[in-house]
Amino acid sequence: MAVYKAPLRDMQFVLNELFDAPARWASMDATREVTPDLADAILGEAAKLSENVLFPLNRSGDEEGCQWSQGSDGFATVKTPKGFREAFRQLAEGGWTALSGVPEYGGQGMPKMLTVMFDEMLYGANSSFALYPMLSNGCTLCIASHASDEQKAMYLPPIYEGRWCGTMCLTEPHSGTDLGIIRTKAVPNGDGSFAVSGTKIFITGGEHDLAENIIHLVLAKLPDAPPGPKGISLFIVPKYLVNADGSVGARNPVNCGSIEHKMGIKGSATAVLNFDGAQGWIVGEPGNGLAYMFTMMNYERLSIGIQGLGLGEVAYQSAAAYAKDRIQGRAATGAVAKDKVADPIIVHPDVRRMLLTARAYSEGGRAFACFVGEQLDLAKYHADAKVRAEADALVQLLTPVAKAFFSDKGFEACVAGQQCFGGHGYIREWGMEQLVRDARIAQIYEGTNGIQALDLAGRKVARNGGQYAQVYFAQMHATLDALKGVAGVEAELAEANRVLKLLEDTTAWLVDEAKGDANAIGAASVDYLELFGLVTYAWLWVRMMAIAAPKAQADAFYAAKLLTGRFYFQRLLPKADALAAQVKAGSQPLMAMDAGLF
Amino acid sequence: MAVYKAPLRDMQFVLNELFDAPARWASMDATREVTPDLADAILGEAAKLSENVLFPLNRSGDEEGCQWSQGSDGFATVKTPKGFREAFRQLAEGGWTALSGVPEYGGQGMPKMLTVMFDEMLYGANSSFALYPMLSNGCTLCIASHASDEQKAMYLPPIYEGRWCGTMCLTEPHSGTDLGIIRTKAVPNGDGSFAVSGTKIFITGGEHDLAENIIHLVLAKLPDAPPGPKGISLFIVPKYLVNADGSVGARNPVNCGSIEHKMGIKGSATAVLNFDGAQGWIVGEPGNGLAYMFTMMNYERLSIGIQGLGLGEVAYQSAAAYAKDRIQGRAATGAVAKDKVADPIIVHPDVRRMLLTARAYSEGGRAFACFVGEQLDLAKYHADAKVRAEADALVQLLTPVAKAFFSDKGFEACVAGQQCFGGHGYIREWGMEQLVRDARIAQIYEGTNGIQALDLAGRKVARNGGQYAQVYFAQMHATLDALKGVAGVEAELAEANRVLKLLEDTTAWLVDEAKGDANAIGAASVDYLELFGLVTYAWLWVRMMAIAAPKAQADAFYAAKLLTGRFYFQRLLPKADALAAQVKAGSQPLMAMDAGLF
Repeated sequence: MAVYKAPLRDMQFVLNELFDAPARWASMDATREVTPDLADAILGEAAKLSENVLFPLNRSGDEEGCQWSQGSDGFATVKTPKGFREAFRQLAEGGWTALSGVPEYGGQGMPKMLTVMFDEMLYGANSSFALYPMLSNGCTLCIASHASDEQKAMYLPPIYEGRWCGTMCLTEPHSGTDLGIIRTKAVPNGDGSFAVSGTKIFITGGEHDLAENIIHLVLAKLPDAPPGPKGISLFIVPKYLVNADGSVGARNPVNCGSIEHKMGIKGSATAVLNFDGAQGWIVGEPGNGLAYMFTMMNYERLSIGIQGLGLGEVAYQSAAAYAKDRIQGRAATGAVAKDKVADPIIVHPDVRRMLLTARAYSEGGRAFACFVGEQLDLAKYHADAKVRAEADALVQLLTPVAKAFFSDKGFEACVAGQQCFGGHGYIREWGMEQLVRDARIAQIYEGTNGIQALDLAGRKVARNGGQYAQVYFAQMHATLDALKGVAGVEAELAEANRVLKLLEDTTAWLVDEAKGDANAIGAASVDYLELFGLVTYAWLWVRMMAIAAPKAQADAFYAAKLLTGRFYFQRLLPKADALAAQVKAGSQPLMAMDAGLF
Repeated sequence: MAVYKAPLRDMQFVLNELFDAPARWASMDATREVTPDLADAILGEAAKLSENVLFPLNRSGDEEGCQWSQGSDGFATVKTPKGFREAFRQLAEGGWTALSGVPEYGGQGMPKMLTVMFDEMLYGANSSFALYPMLSNGCTLCIASHASDEQKAMYLPPIYEGRWCGTMCLTEPHSGTDLGIIRTKAVPNGDGSFAVSGTKIFITGGEHDLAENIIHLVLAKLPDAPPGPKGISLFIVPKYLVNADGSVGARNPVNCGSIEHKMGIKGSATAVLNFDGAQGWIVGEPGNGLAYMFTMMNYERLSIGIQGLGLGEVAYQSAAAYAKDRIQGRAATGAVAKDKVADPIIVHPDVRRMLLTARAYSEGGRAFACFVGEQLDLAKYHADAKVRAEADALVQLLTPVAKAFFSDKGFEACVAGQQCFGGHGYIREWGMEQLVRDARIAQIYEGTNGIQALDLAGRKVARNGGQYAQVYFAQMHATLDALKGVAGVEAELAEANRVLKLLEDTTAWLVDEAKGDANAIGAASVDYLELFGLVTYAWLWVRMMAIAAPKAQADAFYAAKLLTGRFYFQRLLPKADALAAQVKAGSQPLMAMDAGLF
């Protein structure tokens, strides 16, 4: 069976030993109150919630799914799986829905370095459930960043309190990646509000029974809007109109036409929403909708990456437990469990290969998520404008890497974990196949991983001539240089430097190639992103190994860290060279074939 | 939506142009009657059956699944999805269930080179359905190879006629990969028959409503059997006893306790079978059961590989059709469909990368399947004992490669095809997510792909000092040498020779390493198999490209073949070097960690 314990020890290692988060927090006004004790307490309580409340609802939520039905008032309702309502109440009452919120409106303002750990637990324990609070978080982030003070005061507190939830409504049947062609209209009502009409699909948490109200953030076009992305504005459209005193009022005509039947995340309601002249209020300036929504989307992209990370961790833990328990065959070097008819399958090298693959990506990913979280905190809170600007460059650069690389490697980890179970991995009751189905969506939504790769290679690297990348590479070099002479990681340090050089060369090649070939970016992008991710993990792994090496003799945690890192360098990193070669093949192998020949 | 057309043109290319199958057939007594016209007619009719009868039942079969219910006679029954019964009757009436059967007992004795194409269509059109006739084929093959004449006469004709079906019953709850520890017992009844008792799980087609009778081939142990694999014997246990006149008689006490709820192949009944003193008859000699079953398992392993191949082909076709239809965004080089608000997504290089990945593996795999089929035919039918022996060595060597590499790359192709659909790929009604779920099992059953890799690297390569591999490498060199000077493939020929050398070196390294390290095989196996597969496809691709190059200017089919081959060499083959490096990392990175640290 799938099992899950929040990896608290490793989270503490990443926070305290790898990044010295307490020192970071102490150095900035906004985070000064976050002491190591507070951080530990938060993670400890989050672990209990995840393990004891959310994880037990994961399998049943998948089996039961969400149920759509027509209500007596003409509006459809969606029933979430048994236990989700109660769990969401616990989440709200524990203050978890306010964890990352703006303090001025009732949020707790916890740093992202810490909340990425909480996010990982939520997704690991129950990805379907996690999406409800995650979308609400993204919604409040967007409102807090771009809405008026009046709007903030009206919408933020009840969402932070978990009484209301939020969504993002972008996709339409004919318009997903290409939002410039959306058709949803917003017509001024003359009273400052707008009548919003159109059909939105794939709306996560678009309708459900977890909250009193749902606040939809909707992309739509004003009647006089120019065509394309510049014609898109952003509107707040509540499910129930909000009275002046903040109480829930009349039903707004936004109806859930149906919910999707999906491969996985079956406990998450994915709604078709029909807006039929629903009353909405514009956020900020007309025509800036896409830019505003990107505040939310960048947040969600990191979050969705962490879905892959969390699921990969569960897959690893479950497969490791199974491999130590299931007996089958004998070790190649002779029987180990001589009192039994066979040895536990963890004696077999190939089972270990699968486990270590999942583990190396999981631990590398946890470190990278925390690093990106740190950059988000620095960009937001640091006193020095130069530090803020550099951190923001890294956030821009690394968000697509985190989203795509976490979710791709999380999916690989889930497939590997399932494989360890043999035939039992394919049977629903064991829970492993659900992880694969649930992880698969993270590679698709919030911009497919192909779109993330385009964003990285195009907008974040080539368009600025590699400027953001230079900031990153400089930091990587500096930290690697600081490891010179650390005993026990000499080979890995040399290899990390070698692949960093490979990434730099490949980046330079790509920036140059893109000048003469408009298809260069698209042709290279996915392989380039994977190379970028592998080199990033190499950089983080050697740093972690350098911390672990002196303590590995005395402490099993550090011994395992060191050995997992060695595995990473010897068995996973070699792919980097292949990817660089594939990138440098250019666009011709892809573009030469006429579309009609496919 | 998923779409499927049997790839007849490519099948004819492989049969006629790549391997000159008609000449091969004309050269052997057993296949002399297989003319090109007959082969074409068979493939053409098979295409109609697959496209018009089986593919339309694929989605509905997945939604409906199989239904288990308790019967009034105390035995459970399993209802297959709507339409499966009628389709199976059509299959039987068309003689398709006898296609590869022994002519002496009513089979058509068609060569494997041809039937692999039929198998690909069946799996591509409907993998759940295909498993019923496939298991029957394996069962008859085992009976034809090892049972008595009396048993052959009793069981082969009704299975060939599609009146009865067959199964293979190996796995028990505690015993899957490690069959030496099975507990099912067979006690002599004193009349030449045995009373078989025990529980078998994961029995594909173990109970269903498609046929009058089901013939189970069951591994069990005699009371005085030695422990381990040598104590395993093989028994024929019919669901209904067979009267002397061949009619169906009394019910045998073998009951379907339940069917599994699985990730995919939901139209295929996966049964728990409880044998409660069921009457059975031994096949051949006691203690040889596993060897006999391997006749069937090798057949099934190739077959299951072809499941991956067939599903990868459907994924490719469906994604290519979608990519030409779905409009979203503009080509990087400027608008293509100027009359529309966006271009078809096939203009985007990364969409092409996904499509070409699926296609290159699909076409490479089709060629490899036919090559392995040819070796099976040669091993069985060729007049020259040396040719037979060499072909048999190649069958032994290449069966695990075909099973694992086809199913791994088929799964990759399905995931890539699903990805092309964006969010729609995750929704059940579009059919793409089903392909991913259905393809996943092929990596697991009939021996996980990890077990295939162990079989390749251990039994088939290291144990005989690379002897089988030498036979293969010699053939590869000879065919590559014959391509010297062919215009248009010079670069690919050089690269194919280079990676063949890489495979030879890696093989030599592994054979040597295995002498001093019992874990060397298990540590290297999966990466070694993937390297083996990639080099095999490079060898086949350059041969196909050499045929296509002179005709590519004049004929779109050859142009596409040439360009797909170039893509393979430039974008997929580079991984070979990484895999060789990973193999040579040895077992230490895997075995160093104490089991308790996982």
